[in-house]
Amino acid sequence: MAKSKYEYVKNFETEKKLLPNCWIVVRIDGRAFHQFSTKHKFKKPNDENALALMNRAASVVMDEFKDILLSYGQSDEYSFVIRKDTTLYNRRGPKIMTYINSLFSTSYVYYWSHYFKETRLKYPPAFDARIILYPTDENLRDYLSWRQADCHINNLYNTTFWALVLKGGLTNTEAEKRLCGTLSSDKNEILFSEFNTNYNNEPIMYRKGTILIRKRIKNPEHGKMRQVILPLHEDMIQDNFWQKHSEILAIKS
Amino acid sequence: MAKSKYEYVKNFETEKKLLPNCWIVVRIDGRAFHQFSTKHKFKKPNDENALALMNRAASVVMDEFKDILLSYGQSDEYSFVIRKDTTLYNRRGPKIMTYINSLFSTSYVYYWSHYFKETRLKYPPAFDARIILYPTDENLRDYLSWRQADCHINNLYNTTFWALVLKGGLTNTEAEKRLCGTLSSDKNEILFSEFNTNYNNEPIMYRKGTILIRKRIKNPEHGKMRQVILPLHEDMIQDNFWQKHSEILAIKS
Amino acid sequence: MAKSKYEYVKNFETEKKLLPNCWIVVRIDGRAFHQFSTKHKFKKPNDENALALMNRAASVVMDEFKDILLSYGQSDEYSFVIRKDTTLYNRRGPKIMTYINSLFSTSYVYYWSHYFKETRLKYPPAFDARIILYPTDENLRDYLSWRQADCHINNLYNTTFWALVLKGGLTNTEAEKRLCGTLSSDKNEILFSEFNTNYNNEPIMYRKGTILIRKRIKNPEHGKMRQVILPLHEDMIQDNFWQKHSEILAIKS
Amino acid sequence: MAKSKYEYVKNFETEKKLLPNCWIVVRIDGRAFHQFSTKHKFKKPNDENALALMNRAASVVMDEFKDILLSYGQSDEYSFVIRKDTTLYNRRGPKIMTYINSLFSTSYVYYWSHYFKETRLKYPPAFDARIILYPTDENLRDYLSWRQADCHINNLYNTTFWALVLKGGLTNTEAEKRLCGTLSSDKNEILFSEFNTNYNNEPIMYRKGTILIRKRIKNPEHGKMRQVILPLHEDMIQDNFWQKHSEILAIKS
Repeated sequence: MAKSKYEYVKNFETEKKLLPNCWIVVRIDGRAFHQFSTKHKFKKPNDENALALMNRAASVVMDEFKDILLSYGQSDEYSFVIRKDTTLYNRRGPKIMTYINSLFSTSYVYYWSHYFKETRLKYPPAFDARIILYPTDENLRDYLSWRQADCHINNLYNTTFWALVLKGGLTNTEAEKRLCGTLSSDKNEILFSEFNTNYNNEPIMYRKGTILIRKRIKNPEHGKMRQVILPLHEDMIQDNFWQKHSEILAIKS
Repeated sequence: MAKSKYEYVKNFETEKKLLPNCWIVVRIDGRAFHQFSTKHKFKKPNDENALALMNRAASVVMDEFKDILLSYGQSDEYSFVIRKDTTLYNRRGPKIMTYINSLFSTSYVYYWSHYFKETRLKYPPAFDARIILYPTDENLRDYLSWRQADCHINNLYNTTFWALVLKGGLTNTEAEKRLCGTLSSDKNEILFSEFNTNYNNEPIMYRKGTILIRKRIKNPEHGKMRQVILPLHEDMIQDNFWQKHSEILAIKS
Repeated sequence: MAKSKYEYVKNFETEKKLLPNCWIVVRIDGRAFHQFSTKHKFKKPNDENALALMNRAASVVMDEFKDILLSYGQSDEYSFVIRKDTTLYNRRGPKIMTYINSLFSTSYVYYWSHYFKETRLKYPPAFDARIILYPTDENLRDYLSWRQADCHINNLYNTTFWALVLKGGLTNTEAEKRLCGTLSSDKNEILFSEFNTNYNNEPIMYRKGTILIRKRIKNPEHGKMRQVILPLHEDMIQDNFWQKHSEILAIKS
Repeated sequence: MAKSKYEYVKNFETEKKLLPNCWIVVRIDGRAFHQFSTKHKFKKPNDENALALMNRAASVVMDEFKDILLSYGQSDEYSFVIRKDTTLYNRRGPKIMTYINSLFSTSYVYYWSHYFKETRLKYPPAFDARIILYPTDENLRDYLSWRQADCHINNLYNTTFWALVLKGGLTNTEAEKRLCGTLSSDKNEILFSEFNTNYNNEPIMYRKGTILIRKRIKNPEHGKMRQVILPLHEDMIQDNFWQKHSEILAIKS
């Protein structure tokens, strides 16, 4: 049973390294989460526990992979931004991508019951992952702006849609039809005039998603500094965020 | 908050398709499972429950992805063989690889308590994945032979090592030293003469690993045919296996 | 002027190896050869010298790269088939592709005056190259059939088109219009009834393109065997060709 | 002879696009040019005509591909720097690389007799090409510094080596031995004390290589502006060059 006779098959494996000096983004995304959220009775338009669980899973990933500088999550997706000078797994893309995705996935199941005390997890969910390179800080910021703008657009739509359905008594199809072709301003108006809702007063986590960054904070008891993973719900599209947290992009490449 | 302004960042995503008409193998592998098995007190040299859990997770994956024709698992790794003519996710490698890996990972956690009733899962484990193409049936068979030969070599070593430690009273270091440079025949001899163990009588799942294939079987009650995922512990290195299950390689490419 | 300080930039080079055990095809193709052929007054529909020059350039390439088993050329393109077990340049695709393309290109210019005694080369032409993997003999044969069918279709069209223009007195636009939507049988009929031309009697090099293979032949003088590159104008679509030259696909992979 | 039956083979072609917003460098390199230079009696250590021919071939390439901003050549290699925002051939790397390489190659043969009036080209040479991405201006500058430092190191070595051989009467092997382990300062000293040569007075094209850039200049006759390709032999390692020609890196990405 000579193993060596067969070992030539290892040569069929490819091992492409990621281009150096580029920001690395791994984005994970829930598979068929529309159905998953229905089966597990997620609250509409946003389920606070479901989002908290996503954030928890992302925190586990950040705890494990110190080269992740920032993570951003909304809905059933999470993006992990890895330092451009990382040497993690020798910059082998598939290795980085699959470990992050797997750990996020297992953490989601592992911590399910902490966030859903009443609802049993009916089946194991799955997430896919992709890995993307961004050469410049501007490209990276635009990526994050893209995801945060996506969060806003979807959340405004969903908030209005579910107001029409849950409070307005429309069927799903009627609500869809009503919103077809509407602008943001139209949706804001519907919410305000028909449901007495000022969209800007909706919970900021729903409107902006969740940013996880590392910060060194002082322990209030003994005064020692330690690093924590801090959840933020700020606007990353404006410069202000990046000035306030200037250490994120401060890496010398 | 114009999303379109940022959407150019999508162009940085690459979308390489796998070469057509090649066998696709996705192999997943536990991260730091030596430590994981210690922390969770896996029995040595083999933990029946741990292996059964791996098999269960692999079955979930096969249930979901019908284009997986055969899976092979041993220790903390599992290989999934996908039909060479699959059009799954348009043959996008990262998509195929990350979904399979994620679903395996979540299933492992989801079904943990079915197999470990006494031992709580202490932390979420992680698996990496790689994807490999094999152009010919011979290459694919050699791949599977390679993994099964690997299973044999490791299991013979581990069986002897743990006999020396658990029954022979050696320390880990002493056992390692004793086995250093030994041939298979030496290990067989140690097991036989010192521990009255005929290696060939050790459980076949430990010696051969687990092969999962699909078979149509008749329901004993109502006689209807249905497809099941069948675990086998056979020798894939010999021709006999492939003649017996000739449908696996019978795909017309 | 420390070189070492800058050498890190080498890490930005990627070095992907071609999947083992696949047929490798490099196809080169003339850039803007429609214009090139006009400027150099190539005879229409086929210029014997231009094709002979292409064949010569391909022969230089085959002389240099012994792992090319067969080449096939038609019009301004040439395909080179490299043994599936080649270790040429460690199977680095770009290296293989660019050397073949460059040597073909320089040979085309180098031998120009041998084939065009009256027409000076007005400017240096260019060829692009691509590299393609085919896992099975059947895929490779289908590739070559595809190119030879393409040769046939284009040549039948061009032969009819230029008969209409050169002998029939139509303008290019009129000839195009006349042929629009016609089937092969229509074109054969036009040639036969209007120009007394039986397409099947047209020179076979024009109808089938040129296949270059290696053959060992006996020197008629001293009787010693030596290897030559033999030009053939046969039908590669039929099995007959592959039976007759069975050594081409006979490589054990 | 249905072409469509075979067209599926096109799906085996891959078409990877280069990452956006990165500098693209194509470097071509002579194949076996040591032998080529000997066969064609190139003067040692530098053959002015051979270098002028390289520069001419590179100029043809720059004339054709307007997105090349700068080229740098030394010895038998040439690097072409393409704008980071190019959409040339839809950023398909192999297409860009093979066209540039082919046109350089054919131009080298085409213009041979302009530079070598006495020496017939004995056989067609070949060049390989590679394509490399650099995310930042700094990386690109370091790449060019690397090549220019390489030029310096090789030229100092070659100048000293050939002085020892041609003027000092040493055999090649003796000269090699003499130079083994020497520093730059040692070689400068040999040149100065033994051959009365101040290396810094050697022709600057040999010491720095050739940079080709585009400049708009005024026609001295009619005063109209036009773009020309300008050869420079300056130091690209210092900031001064980049300040003087600040338009090169001025592209807004």
